[in-house]
Amino acid sequence: MIESLKTDILVIGGGPAAFVMVATALEHYPDKKITVIKEEKQSLVPCGIPYIFGKTLGSAEKDIMACGAPMAEVVAILIDKVLDVDIDNKQAKSANYEISFEKLVFATGSVPFVHPVFEDALLLENCFTVNKNVEQIEKLKNYLDDKKKIIVIGTGFIGVEIATELADIGKDVTIIGGNHILAGSFDYEMAVQAEEIMKKKGITLALGQHACEVLKENNLATGVLLQDDTQINGEVIIFCTGYKPNTQLAQSAGLKLARYGGIWVDEYMRTRNKDVFAVGDCSGRRDFITRDPSKIMLASTSASEARVAGYSLYGLKYLKGFDGTIAIFSTKIGNRVFASAGVTEERAKEENIDHVIGSFEGLNRHPGTIPDASKQSVKLVALKSSGQIIGGQVIGDKEAGEMINTLGLAIESKLTAHNIISLQVATQPLLTAAPTTYPIIKAAQKVIETSISKTI
Amino acid sequence: MIESLKTDILVIGGGPAAFVMVATALEHYPDKKITVIKEEKQSLVPCGIPYIFGKTLGSAEKDIMACGAPMAEVVAILIDKVLDVDIDNKQAKSANYEISFEKLVFATGSVPFVHPVFEDALLLENCFTVNKNVEQIEKLKNYLDDKKKIIVIGTGFIGVEIATELADIGKDVTIIGGNHILAGSFDYEMAVQAEEIMKKKGITLALGQHACEVLKENNLATGVLLQDDTQINGEVIIFCTGYKPNTQLAQSAGLKLARYGGIWVDEYMRTRNKDVFAVGDCSGRRDFITRDPSKIMLASTSASEARVAGYSLYGLKYLKGFDGTIAIFSTKIGNRVFASAGVTEERAKEENIDHVIGSFEGLNRHPGTIPDASKQSVKLVALKSSGQIIGGQVIGDKEAGEMINTLGLAIESKLTAHNIISLQVATQPLLTAAPTTYPIIKAAQKVIETSISKTI
Repeated sequence: MIESLKTDILVIGGGPAAFVMVATALEHYPDKKITVIKEEKQSLVPCGIPYIFGKTLGSAEKDIMACGAPMAEVVAILIDKVLDVDIDNKQAKSANYEISFEKLVFATGSVPFVHPVFEDALLLENCFTVNKNVEQIEKLKNYLDDKKKIIVIGTGFIGVEIATELADIGKDVTIIGGNHILAGSFDYEMAVQAEEIMKKKGITLALGQHACEVLKENNLATGVLLQDDTQINGEVIIFCTGYKPNTQLAQSAGLKLARYGGIWVDEYMRTRNKDVFAVGDCSGRRDFITRDPSKIMLASTSASEARVAGYSLYGLKYLKGFDGTIAIFSTKIGNRVFASAGVTEERAKEENIDHVIGSFEGLNRHPGTIPDASKQSVKLVALKSSGQIIGGQVIGDKEAGEMINTLGLAIESKLTAHNIISLQVATQPLLTAAPTTYPIIKAAQKVIETSISKTI
Repeated sequence: MIESLKTDILVIGGGPAAFVMVATALEHYPDKKITVIKEEKQSLVPCGIPYIFGKTLGSAEKDIMACGAPMAEVVAILIDKVLDVDIDNKQAKSANYEISFEKLVFATGSVPFVHPVFEDALLLENCFTVNKNVEQIEKLKNYLDDKKKIIVIGTGFIGVEIATELADIGKDVTIIGGNHILAGSFDYEMAVQAEEIMKKKGITLALGQHACEVLKENNLATGVLLQDDTQINGEVIIFCTGYKPNTQLAQSAGLKLARYGGIWVDEYMRTRNKDVFAVGDCSGRRDFITRDPSKIMLASTSASEARVAGYSLYGLKYLKGFDGTIAIFSTKIGNRVFASAGVTEERAKEENIDHVIGSFEGLNRHPGTIPDASKQSVKLVALKSSGQIIGGQVIGDKEAGEMINTLGLAIESKLTAHNIISLQVATQPLLTAAPTTYPIIKAAQKVIETSISKTI
């Protein structure tokens, strides 16, 4: 029996974008009826997934999004797969429900991307992708239990975090990928510091390489063959080669897709139909700096989009839309935190942006005799003409995870190095760098010096 | 024999303001000769002083400003006390030198302020102020060595930090002061969390009280008498009752003083004489929000002023002066960090600012099962009409020390709650709150909700 329902706002999906969307809509439209339809009862915290495999979390159970419970009291949550959406008639159908809506939000997320050449390999029982799904993550975790030699393909942050967690519990890990890890987010001299930590943990880095072929025997993968004919043996292969927007449903509903396959949306996350929105990894994204289509998939981006959509559902309330992703993110490798926002120096060159850089390395406490003092470095990328900050990288202790948010705010607010150098920053011996050598400010000063000397 | 010297830039003082001033001038005017004249060879890191008394640093030696060494190579550093400045003839005199200059910078800092009623008490050998001077700090530290019962008068951050450090090494500490500790920087419901931690450390809090009299016997203080006639006994009394600008020299040179006794300066830290600057605690300050004269003395303020002066010495380079102090600061009490910027709710009321507040408490990791997760709360104060952020308070783990700098940037950039809610923030399980419940954004959403409901 198909149940017929009527709702004001229908959200398809159960990830962070859906959650933020609903929370924001509840705040701005408290009188509207909101219905969420999602395929699985329990959703994983996506960025927590790598930590399920090591000792940090240790189980999928510990990575369940807790936010569902309070929401369930005011929002109708249906567990089912939407099969068809009729946008003109404002109706969605699943196996058990027929739902009519006023506003529709796609928050259908993304699915692992694997190069077509490896699609067959994924049928082998010891080849895995990292799927944001409790059962599949548990399956991979259980499979890893008694295995020793692990191959991780892909050096984005998911690959790097999983490799590190596995090395920490004694696995023999090889990671394969681009010229340096976390490419796109860090320039070489920054990334190499993370690579050194991984090597010290005993991880083998096969960089500057692509995996060309999965080797197999008796229906089990035995390793991979690299471009240069090196053979890497392993008992398990984990593909961390990115994600692609999950847009089958949107596509069959007739919505236009953007380059890279996301659902086309305007700055307020509206599709061509003003009553239909898309947020999160399933939406088509642009880059904040270059305005080009972007493949970035980050919770920071999704949450921001979802907030914009959440308050724009019934009309544009604030003329502040989502202005493109600044690709802001942070991760911890060993005891060091690596954080990045905006463009790197390398990317500024590729994109032909007339830029200068400013770097500074100091200490994260003051004086340096404070017991837990360690190095902290900041690299800024700025427009040469105006000094506008367009990118930043921070390496430090845990505080770097929040320092990058100061830089993100500077980038989004289009501040210049001149704005930064007179900034008032709270400094405290046990918590921060010295007021005299606060790295963000010192790096901004270098930007100005460089841009003066380059102009002469 | 008095030595005659000629310099381009003469800086009087040896604290952080002088140091930042010189570093900035070196970057912007590399061809100018810079001379620093200061009274003591070694300068203490001012905000490190409380940590000399406990186990964190444990000695004055470990709190020496390290920045002197590299500077000494390019800057002339004289150790002497300036006795007289002739501004018209551009000459300064000390016991050993007669220095002619083009530009003069006062960075003479501040000296402890003690209510006149206690001036006599300071002559007793067991009554102390917290002077930014190696010898005097060492004297106090040595004196404390075999004492048990300590009285700290004053509940500003110096008093609170010293009390906490002393309690941590087993002293029996009583702290006396206003209605709640760190008043001015925190609203009651925030401050009370710090008070609870201090109580758990065994510190006695005599709040809502003033010390009226120091009791003495045989030329030694034995305790203090409070307003309500309570008598507190102690073997040592430490006065942490603030500082006042050190402006004797400037005053006798004929410079105008501002209210509260600092040297009057414009937005570029220039006195009425365009060749004479004042930076740091000795300068007259205004409040960023209310534009009123301000008594705030913080390294964050001093460093920002010194940067502005440093690049404005030979003309205004950027039309971005020092726009008043946002009183941004942070401290750690026990395992919790308390950070504040701009105005509190209490002060907004006193100043008759038409405001709304937004508060949110969440966790500093996500999911909450991450081993070192702890509570994180943010309180924002904003203008009701526009949502412009005018104040923020953060309580959390060490990361709160950098989160406040994001709020400081928002306040200085005059951003509104609407700018904040669509912000892209880097979130990472091991480092930050969840993207779905990032406290700064959630607090900004509460500001908007409240301001909507208050308008209706």
